[in-house]
Amino acid sequence: MNRYISDIDTVRLNPAGDGIEIIDQTKLPGRIHIETLKRQEDIWHAINILQVRGAPAIGVTAGFAMYLAALAISRDQTVNGNPDHMKKERFFTRLAAAKTYLNSARPTAVNLSWATQRMEDSAKKFFEENPAKDNLTTVLNTVEHLKAEALSIYEEDIATCRAIGENALTLVKKGDGLLTHCNAGKLATVRYGTATSVMYLGHEKGYGFKIYCDETRPLNQGSRLTAFELSEAGMDVTLLCDNMSASLMKSGAVNAIFVGCDRVAANGDTANKIGTSLLALAAKHYNVPFYVCAPTSTIDLSCSCGDEIVIEQRPSEEVTKMWFENPIAPEKIKVYNPSFDVTDASLISAIITEKGIIKGDYLSNLKTLT
Amino acid sequence: MNRYISDIDTVRLNPAGDGIEIIDQTKLPGRIHIETLKRQEDIWHAINILQVRGAPAIGVTAGFAMYLAALAISRDQTVNGNPDHMKKERFFTRLAAAKTYLNSARPTAVNLSWATQRMEDSAKKFFEENPAKDNLTTVLNTVEHLKAEALSIYEEDIATCRAIGENALTLVKKGDGLLTHCNAGKLATVRYGTATSVMYLGHEKGYGFKIYCDETRPLNQGSRLTAFELSEAGMDVTLLCDNMSASLMKSGAVNAIFVGCDRVAANGDTANKIGTSLLALAAKHYNVPFYVCAPTSTIDLSCSCGDEIVIEQRPSEEVTKMWFENPIAPEKIKVYNPSFDVTDASLISAIITEKGIIKGDYLSNLKTLT
Repeated sequence: MNRYISDIDTVRLNPAGDGIEIIDQTKLPGRIHIETLKRQEDIWHAINILQVRGAPAIGVTAGFAMYLAALAISRDQTVNGNPDHMKKERFFTRLAAAKTYLNSARPTAVNLSWATQRMEDSAKKFFEENPAKDNLTTVLNTVEHLKAEALSIYEEDIATCRAIGENALTLVKKGDGLLTHCNAGKLATVRYGTATSVMYLGHEKGYGFKIYCDETRPLNQGSRLTAFELSEAGMDVTLLCDNMSASLMKSGAVNAIFVGCDRVAANGDTANKIGTSLLALAAKHYNVPFYVCAPTSTIDLSCSCGDEIVIEQRPSEEVTKMWFENPIAPEKIKVYNPSFDVTDASLISAIITEKGIIKGDYLSNLKTLT
Repeated sequence: MNRYISDIDTVRLNPAGDGIEIIDQTKLPGRIHIETLKRQEDIWHAINILQVRGAPAIGVTAGFAMYLAALAISRDQTVNGNPDHMKKERFFTRLAAAKTYLNSARPTAVNLSWATQRMEDSAKKFFEENPAKDNLTTVLNTVEHLKAEALSIYEEDIATCRAIGENALTLVKKGDGLLTHCNAGKLATVRYGTATSVMYLGHEKGYGFKIYCDETRPLNQGSRLTAFELSEAGMDVTLLCDNMSASLMKSGAVNAIFVGCDRVAANGDTANKIGTSLLALAAKHYNVPFYVCAPTSTIDLSCSCGDEIVIEQRPSEEVTKMWFENPIAPEKIKVYNPSFDVTDASLISAIITEKGIIKGDYLSNLKTLT
């Protein structure tokens, strides 16, 4: 390992502006491998198999992906150098197809469809409002605009995460024990993370937290990613298996729990990595505050409650074979492997966004944000 | 794999009567390897590293171990053929040392100290009540008696497990979804298991259960052992990660939970594999009956409540390295790895023993059993 993870953005546009550089998270913590993605199929695959994961990082990736799709369409359609070949309808039909294709890589991740929709809307608006001498020029200008828009999503993510951390820091005190599940860390965003932002900012300010990371089966994002990135940043980190959280809370070691989220419904019900709702039940029993860190882009007011959130079932092999030297379970065993669960709003002490901390009547109070 | 696990007792005395045959459970489900243990050091090691595990199986092993210890002492002390060398005090001092040594292999497992104490007490009683023509003959007769006593523990275990299953079967109905944690299965006993006995007996009677097994990190006894033994017996088995139980219960798939135990305190507080108390919290939230299957040998009335139970911390490597092809966590990360947790009696719907089902006021009702 010759580069430090903290020196590298999790997702960024490459210097040539024709590819997305990501840290391949399936290779951590063993190896820091930077992958450059150019083709839409490669981006789809990277999102689907979790080479890039975490709602905000997926959103940033999807923004760049839509820009790259527009770039490819514009090049494809001007191959003969004839500006009349560039039809507005064809451009936007193909851009919409790119959006649909990208969205299918992780149906539960609302940031994915949020980013692709934002990019499409922005393209249409720019195209209408900035007519050039011909359609080709307008399309090429639109592509340049999409590059700037994708870079805005990237920069907003950095600012959003930092603001979430600053808000969360008002809820903790020096020396606290903080538990997190899965990776809503730097590696799930561009920098800082959502759930981990309070940890990074507190660490900068000398809070001396004791950090506890659930390993987060079956993909072990907690042990591979969160424990890795936080201990590399110099924090006091302890790893535990997911089934140990009740025991740890009973011991009094945990003062607060911070988790990320994939989607927050209008009533505050929150979809996040499988195991989150179980952790929230234990937190309630042991009176440990349970905080969801949610960029407002993750709040989906069109989704009234958790029952409307579709939960992906993922492959059996993630539980039975992946990571293991020898098969850890019988051949052909049936496996229940939902990617997410939904935590009931009643179990959530507060939802921390970049715009402020929401508590109490989520149905009313979440609306004030957007 | 050329032998079926269901044809083999988990622990038994070898035909020559000078060793303990165990199924080496660290090698499952990949390979069925029968290990014969003769030296006390080997037996201690097998218990310590969980080659043989599960409270009842440890008790049976400890019974045979005490017989083998007595046999070795008797042979050692008659090496010159002089019956006067056999001193009663020396025999019992060395037998007590064997007991202390064996008990140290798994301090939390009450069946271990229960079995070694029973063997020692039985030896003393037999020795006093059956004087022969000289001490040597009395000792040799005592050794033979200990062999019979150890075989009684073995046979009682089979009968006890069957009776627990018959009692538990009165609490379920055909087609039920039954969830279990860790392995309180056949492989934790001689046959049937404790928590799984209801499943084996129901399966024989055509109940058509749907069985759910927690994988049970970090040692994965659920995926390696329980899912293995139950699916090999022909049951409909689904594996899940420990953090998925709340999601599964919310779906309505689970009608009852059956777990084993390592120690039940006088007030009903129960020490069992780490994760049990978290599961019990979720069961309470989702109104799923939570049953502890406990041979009366596991009930420790001398322990007033769960706070008195010492919980072992186990090595970090079990979480970070064991089983994995590549390290799954950063080097040198701190790990919280308690072997057990204590489930509060208030979360337990009933304690099922071979003598009957205990509910309600455990402090009063557990006393009626012993």
